[in-house]
Amino acid sequence: MAVFEINSIVDSLKSARQDWRASQHRSREPGGREFPSPQAIAGILEDLKGVLFPMRLGPLCLRQESEDFYIGHTLDSALHALLGQVRLELQYELREHKLSSNDIEQKAVACVQSFANALPEIRRMLDADVLAAYQGDPAARSVDEVLLCYPGVLAMIHHRIAHQFYNQDLHLLARMSSELAHSQTGIDIHPGAQIGPSFFIDHGTGVVIGETAIIGKGVRIYQAVTLGAKRFPTDANGKIEKGLPRHPIVEDDVVIYAGATILGRVTLGRGCTIGGNVWLINDVPAGGHVTQADSQGMGTCDPAAAVAGA
Amino acid sequence: MAVFEINSIVDSLKSARQDWRASQHRSREPGGREFPSPQAIAGILEDLKGVLFPMRLGPLCLRQESEDFYIGHTLDSALHALLGQVRLELQYELREHKLSSNDIEQKAVACVQSFANALPEIRRMLDADVLAAYQGDPAARSVDEVLLCYPGVLAMIHHRIAHQFYNQDLHLLARMSSELAHSQTGIDIHPGAQIGPSFFIDHGTGVVIGETAIIGKGVRIYQAVTLGAKRFPTDANGKIEKGLPRHPIVEDDVVIYAGATILGRVTLGRGCTIGGNVWLINDVPAGGHVTQADSQGMGTCDPAAAVAGA
Amino acid sequence: MAVFEINSIVDSLKSARQDWRASQHRSREPGGREFPSPQAIAGILEDLKGVLFPMRLGPLCLRQESEDFYIGHTLDSALHALLGQVRLELQYELREHKLSSNDIEQKAVACVQSFANALPEIRRMLDADVLAAYQGDPAARSVDEVLLCYPGVLAMIHHRIAHQFYNQDLHLLARMSSELAHSQTGIDIHPGAQIGPSFFIDHGTGVVIGETAIIGKGVRIYQAVTLGAKRFPTDANGKIEKGLPRHPIVEDDVVIYAGATILGRVTLGRGCTIGGNVWLINDVPAGGHVTQADSQGMGTCDPAAAVAGA
Amino acid sequence: MAVFEINSIVDSLKSARQDWRASQHRSREPGGREFPSPQAIAGILEDLKGVLFPMRLGPLCLRQESEDFYIGHTLDSALHALLGQVRLELQYELREHKLSSNDIEQKAVACVQSFANALPEIRRMLDADVLAAYQGDPAARSVDEVLLCYPGVLAMIHHRIAHQFYNQDLHLLARMSSELAHSQTGIDIHPGAQIGPSFFIDHGTGVVIGETAIIGKGVRIYQAVTLGAKRFPTDANGKIEKGLPRHPIVEDDVVIYAGATILGRVTLGRGCTIGGNVWLINDVPAGGHVTQADSQGMGTCDPAAAVAGA
Amino acid sequence: MAVFEINSIVDSLKSARQDWRASQHRSREPGGREFPSPQAIAGILEDLKGVLFPMRLGPLCLRQESEDFYIGHTLDSALHALLGQVRLELQYELREHKLSSNDIEQKAVACVQSFANALPEIRRMLDADVLAAYQGDPAARSVDEVLLCYPGVLAMIHHRIAHQFYNQDLHLLARMSSELAHSQTGIDIHPGAQIGPSFFIDHGTGVVIGETAIIGKGVRIYQAVTLGAKRFPTDANGKIEKGLPRHPIVEDDVVIYAGATILGRVTLGRGCTIGGNVWLINDVPAGGHVTQADSQGMGTCDPAAAVAGA
Amino acid sequence: MAVFEINSIVDSLKSARQDWRASQHRSREPGGREFPSPQAIAGILEDLKGVLFPMRLGPLCLRQESEDFYIGHTLDSALHALLGQVRLELQYELREHKLSSNDIEQKAVACVQSFANALPEIRRMLDADVLAAYQGDPAARSVDEVLLCYPGVLAMIHHRIAHQFYNQDLHLLARMSSELAHSQTGIDIHPGAQIGPSFFIDHGTGVVIGETAIIGKGVRIYQAVTLGAKRFPTDANGKIEKGLPRHPIVEDDVVIYAGATILGRVTLGRGCTIGGNVWLINDVPAGGHVTQADSQGMGTCDPAAAVAGA
Repeated sequence: MAVFEINSIVDSLKSARQDWRASQHRSREPGGREFPSPQAIAGILEDLKGVLFPMRLGPLCLRQESEDFYIGHTLDSALHALLGQVRLELQYELREHKLSSNDIEQKAVACVQSFANALPEIRRMLDADVLAAYQGDPAARSVDEVLLCYPGVLAMIHHRIAHQFYNQDLHLLARMSSELAHSQTGIDIHPGAQIGPSFFIDHGTGVVIGETAIIGKGVRIYQAVTLGAKRFPTDANGKIEKGLPRHPIVEDDVVIYAGATILGRVTLGRGCTIGGNVWLINDVPAGGHVTQADSQGMGTCDPAAAVAGA
Repeated sequence: MAVFEINSIVDSLKSARQDWRASQHRSREPGGREFPSPQAIAGILEDLKGVLFPMRLGPLCLRQESEDFYIGHTLDSALHALLGQVRLELQYELREHKLSSNDIEQKAVACVQSFANALPEIRRMLDADVLAAYQGDPAARSVDEVLLCYPGVLAMIHHRIAHQFYNQDLHLLARMSSELAHSQTGIDIHPGAQIGPSFFIDHGTGVVIGETAIIGKGVRIYQAVTLGAKRFPTDANGKIEKGLPRHPIVEDDVVIYAGATILGRVTLGRGCTIGGNVWLINDVPAGGHVTQADSQGMGTCDPAAAVAGA
Repeated sequence: MAVFEINSIVDSLKSARQDWRASQHRSREPGGREFPSPQAIAGILEDLKGVLFPMRLGPLCLRQESEDFYIGHTLDSALHALLGQVRLELQYELREHKLSSNDIEQKAVACVQSFANALPEIRRMLDADVLAAYQGDPAARSVDEVLLCYPGVLAMIHHRIAHQFYNQDLHLLARMSSELAHSQTGIDIHPGAQIGPSFFIDHGTGVVIGETAIIGKGVRIYQAVTLGAKRFPTDANGKIEKGLPRHPIVEDDVVIYAGATILGRVTLGRGCTIGGNVWLINDVPAGGHVTQADSQGMGTCDPAAAVAGA
Repeated sequence: MAVFEINSIVDSLKSARQDWRASQHRSREPGGREFPSPQAIAGILEDLKGVLFPMRLGPLCLRQESEDFYIGHTLDSALHALLGQVRLELQYELREHKLSSNDIEQKAVACVQSFANALPEIRRMLDADVLAAYQGDPAARSVDEVLLCYPGVLAMIHHRIAHQFYNQDLHLLARMSSELAHSQTGIDIHPGAQIGPSFFIDHGTGVVIGETAIIGKGVRIYQAVTLGAKRFPTDANGKIEKGLPRHPIVEDDVVIYAGATILGRVTLGRGCTIGGNVWLINDVPAGGHVTQADSQGMGTCDPAAAVAGA
Repeated sequence: MAVFEINSIVDSLKSARQDWRASQHRSREPGGREFPSPQAIAGILEDLKGVLFPMRLGPLCLRQESEDFYIGHTLDSALHALLGQVRLELQYELREHKLSSNDIEQKAVACVQSFANALPEIRRMLDADVLAAYQGDPAARSVDEVLLCYPGVLAMIHHRIAHQFYNQDLHLLARMSSELAHSQTGIDIHPGAQIGPSFFIDHGTGVVIGETAIIGKGVRIYQAVTLGAKRFPTDANGKIEKGLPRHPIVEDDVVIYAGATILGRVTLGRGCTIGGNVWLINDVPAGGHVTQADSQGMGTCDPAAAVAGA
Repeated sequence: MAVFEINSIVDSLKSARQDWRASQHRSREPGGREFPSPQAIAGILEDLKGVLFPMRLGPLCLRQESEDFYIGHTLDSALHALLGQVRLELQYELREHKLSSNDIEQKAVACVQSFANALPEIRRMLDADVLAAYQGDPAARSVDEVLLCYPGVLAMIHHRIAHQFYNQDLHLLARMSSELAHSQTGIDIHPGAQIGPSFFIDHGTGVVIGETAIIGKGVRIYQAVTLGAKRFPTDANGKIEKGLPRHPIVEDDVVIYAGATILGRVTLGRGCTIGGNVWLINDVPAGGHVTQADSQGMGTCDPAAAVAGA
């Protein structure tokens, strides 16, 4: 007698799937996978990291005099692989629009072309992030150490790529890209967040940055900082309104210390400093300093007090 | 001359091991590995994820019309691999009971059979978790995105499997399964925790849920929430009592915001809301709201105050 | 027509790299990779884990009677691989000292020899850490479970190795080693931190321990604890002074509960207890207890009050 | 200075390719690989071997009670992979017919469907081959040893599959399949050869069987036997005529010993025996025996002499 | 509609298997693989080659001062892997003897122990083979080139191991070991052949050496030489007699040139020379020379003539 | 008790190695591998095949518009890998010349540079070989099929590379390169053989071509043809003379059919034809035809007779 009743378990699993598909109004039609694949995205991102930083994140045996060959070859194959994933995402996202496969192909090609053209600018922004980290952390010994070892930099490489996908309405690809960094670094940046140049996250574990957050240039944040939403913006009928701006605006040169929680569409003015573990749901004026002591009266912290506490 | 004194280092390492084994009252007998292997468990869990969600977590080339073949084959080989690990765990756990290898084999087979039979129900519960995440996060665009990208869902897949192992006294397998998810997601759920259907963890980094926690249905929690124990329940002689209920009970439809810390065998009543960063060691009545302001007087927060604070 | 303008993107990427190199005053000379490789370090650490704990972290098929063969072979190849990485780091770090390749080789060999000789002592310290975890966590069922499953132990294996590198001024290797653990566990220990024996971190996600922290023996800490610096020690001219002691001293047998933040060169006296979520920037006397309530008046918590709060 | 003049070699290689493409009247257009891939075919054949003989050539961990799951899953994925290769071959072969991609798809699907349906019959023929080998070699200890170890059986598995491709005008796939066996066994059977059931090749190295050879049932041949063509059938104008029958017909139950060379459209009559190293370009009657002695007068060996020589 | 009728093909394949199993009187019982695995044997042989010749066939990074560690570790794991395969073979071979699993285990261990003890002697014999090749081929530049590059040496490494298996009645393992070499080199030596020291095969493709061949010391043969059987020794009732000596005896220092075919239990006397392409079914006296001219009268070549032809 | 006496076997193996090293006058000094590695060479050759024929032997995903990127990158890394192997060979070959490591490096670089520069010409010669195969085999359907499937072409790719190594006195690399092809194809071409353009080997198994053979352009040969040496050219003292021309000269447009054996420094005149299985040790005039019948009187076949036999 067989050890396991495989047939019967297979049947029960099938009926669980059927119930699920019925509840989701999906038909069971023959055919292959309908979504992009996180593993495929991971491979593409590995290639793109090598393309962006060949001598530091590319293959060990690469030599400087042959960088461009490596970049050209790797870029070509990464972009074609990406094209395949973009096709899958568009088919999935637009499955109710009944687009012709020709239309999908055109859209997909346009998406990837535009993504490809953005890569040099992404490199320049990441260089600025690396420099910011080097300058912002007294312990950093070189820009190379920063690029090779700092989880905050890894998170930003993924974010700047994911944000590009997000801007092209490739939400699944964007999300998969940022989750890969989240899993490795504990830093969870929504691909929609707009982040200026020279951004630096130190340590990073537990950082959460929401979809509509807007961050200026030269901002520095530490582990466990949350730039979140106050739950839940609802419309006149009490229904959750999607897409409304609901996360903080952080202006240039702000510093936010570890564990601070900033919620809602508040503005942290240029150059202000938010202390560790602060809980903040109000605006802070430019140059202000907010510490935990100031923030005890949650919901009442007015800018003046914050400045006074500095 | 050789560059390294390998022989002498090998000898020093051996004497360190001998001291350790002596201190642990272990004999040094010939023989192979005595424990289950985290890598083996990881492989089995990968297979089981494919078995549970073939078209989304199974192999890229899978086609819907052949799902059952894939499931049957993968399930069979995963269960036999699991059987091997269960044997190792039982031999290890029961090494002082001097069981015959026949007895161990019977126990191992019974364990895996019962585990296998639970898989369809696990799938149904995970479907409910996915749906809860989809409904609970306005940013989620589809149930598929949730399953493919949300770390909280990954943590729950591991947890619902690990909890099954835990219920069969396979503590090492249970722990290895949940640590795999912890490492990937930063979410640390003890395999013993009892979690009802439609559970949703958003972002998740830093969440800790203790062994004797009991969570109802439809509960939603955010990053860095702790459902922990107040240290240390001791008996009359001051000795730590193991196995006593020491973690919170969270009733249906409770929401706990980021960074809240709830300690001890307190009860969060049905439908209550716990604010971000709250520190809580008392019960909260059904429908109550607790915010950080309420919780300042740690150790004194009584239910009435909590409601009042809502 | 080709789908992508690879040539033009390659050119734009090249000019981004040229700008970066110019800004960093680096010449573009032919030649291979100049830095150690995180992947290479990862492989070396995997081997060293097997060397230190052969029957638990070594290969599945290893047998106890052949441990020494495995250890000798693996150690030899790991040390030679390490030698290669050390050479790269020394060339990089000392690139402005114009050392002869002979001098670099001698330094590299001396570094690795001294590292190799420290391994038996590292094993003994890790045994003590494992024992501390086993004794400190009522949920731990065996020392083997602790070694195989506890992220805090993994972090300490990496740290004790990384600290050795740090002491030999191999800062990149040290950092890469500790980041590997950070990525897997969410525990971020700077390789410079001095940590005594029998150290135990439970759960661990979000723990941050700074470069100049000094931790005694038998200390126990929980998730999300920060042993950080108060920003920024500056000299008379307002310039950041590097290398000054700026992180806490934690004496023997201290316990620090989850989420506590301890900043600056304060001393937590032998045997004291710091409660969860406490924010602390002052010394605590031996045997003192500090709870969140005590710490509200941030910056004013004096030792006496802390003791009174116990 | 760079060690190698990569750019200049790349340019010279490009001009070599351009000359080749010009000489072959090929344009240099953007686009991907145009041919099936030997590695892809190798993977498909490995899968098909497992499908045909699951417990002997399938995965090590397969269990008999789950054969059908494994077969169904593997078959499905192998057939879809094959479909991809068939598409490539049809596009290549029919590139001058300007077929629509729809027509190609229909042809490709029909090819693979018909191939798939032939598999059970192929298994039955291979079973007969295995049995013939077992009965024909006194040294064979079991049918299983024959299937697992005899190169002649491996060559026939490939041939019976390749012949199926050949019959569907998939000449590249057919050739790639048979070359894979040639490389492993030294047995070179043209995919066009028609070979009846219960065919056995012993040792096999150096066997060559030509495209239009016809072999009956129960035939046995040894290493280095050639069933070749007398060069060159030409038409009235002296031009080589392709496709004419030009290799031997070997009737049922013939035995041909090692090193025999049989050339041209001769017929070896039922049950005859050809001795080792014989050189033969004439018919042999049923039941005849030809030895090397008989064959010295090459070109003159008449049937009667052959029989007399027996 | 699905593209392929997988279910129906699976069913037809099942009924083909059922017919085969019925014809072979095998029951279809649940359970795993019953035979050793060629891939497993291949892995074991790779390990053993490293054990025998560590600095030349072992891992690239091996260093001479650590050879013994590598050998000990690799040997231990190869022998345990071999033990697993021996168990499978004994279960298979002895399946009708109804041995207890205890008896099988004892036999298996004894087999592998005795095999292990033979390894040093095998190394010494192979050293002599290498030396013979070096001395016998004017083109050989060093003993190391011979060991690394000569297919004849590879074939002998496999043969001397396979012969050991053969002597312990492990016929499947023996056969699999020699087929691996056959596939790589085109040299087909039956594991039963008894071959003295200092044996050298040059080029080798097409060499066949039969089961009962006996070869003295210092023998040299070239490509496509056959030491075969005259078919078929039958007993009084016309039945093939297995196990009778039926292949040549080749005495010390004989040289056999390419393509020679020597059939039956003939004796080639010490120091004789057999010319290329010779067909020989008679004894040759010590020191004799046989050329193709001599051998034309197949079946009549008497020793005197052979000497005369020299 | 341990199952195997590993220590004692390790000791016996060590003493076997010591005896061998003593017999070879080698000291046992610490240090790494002294020879090039066949696996490394295999990897380099795979890369070079892709460099030479990117769209047919390169990676599956390569696209024509990006060929040069792929070629440049792959060539650079293959040449540097080759440089490493050349260094090893030079150190080994010149170990008695006590060269400085600087001298070795210069020689190694010069070797690889010159090899690299020869690659475009090698491509052109291989194109001619492919064309010859296509034109010479009526069964060939396209030049692409020939390149992808014909073992004779694979053998020539390896040979033309190996011959380059041979010309630079890199005998081990040359030999390893040609043995790789020998193992896959059964075609054994000594790297020293000089082979003109448009050379075609059909089927190929068993072909042997000796070190000093010289082959003109447009030559065609079939399986099992030997172009060998008559043993043994000795000097006045009876000592084997190395390096003397001892293999055939084959002039332009010669055809040699299967199994023919041609030995010694004979000349096959332009355009002559050698029949199957012919044994030949004399010159053949231009345009001559030799068949097996002619060749019976081995050692006496004079050119006139050969022509008469045509």
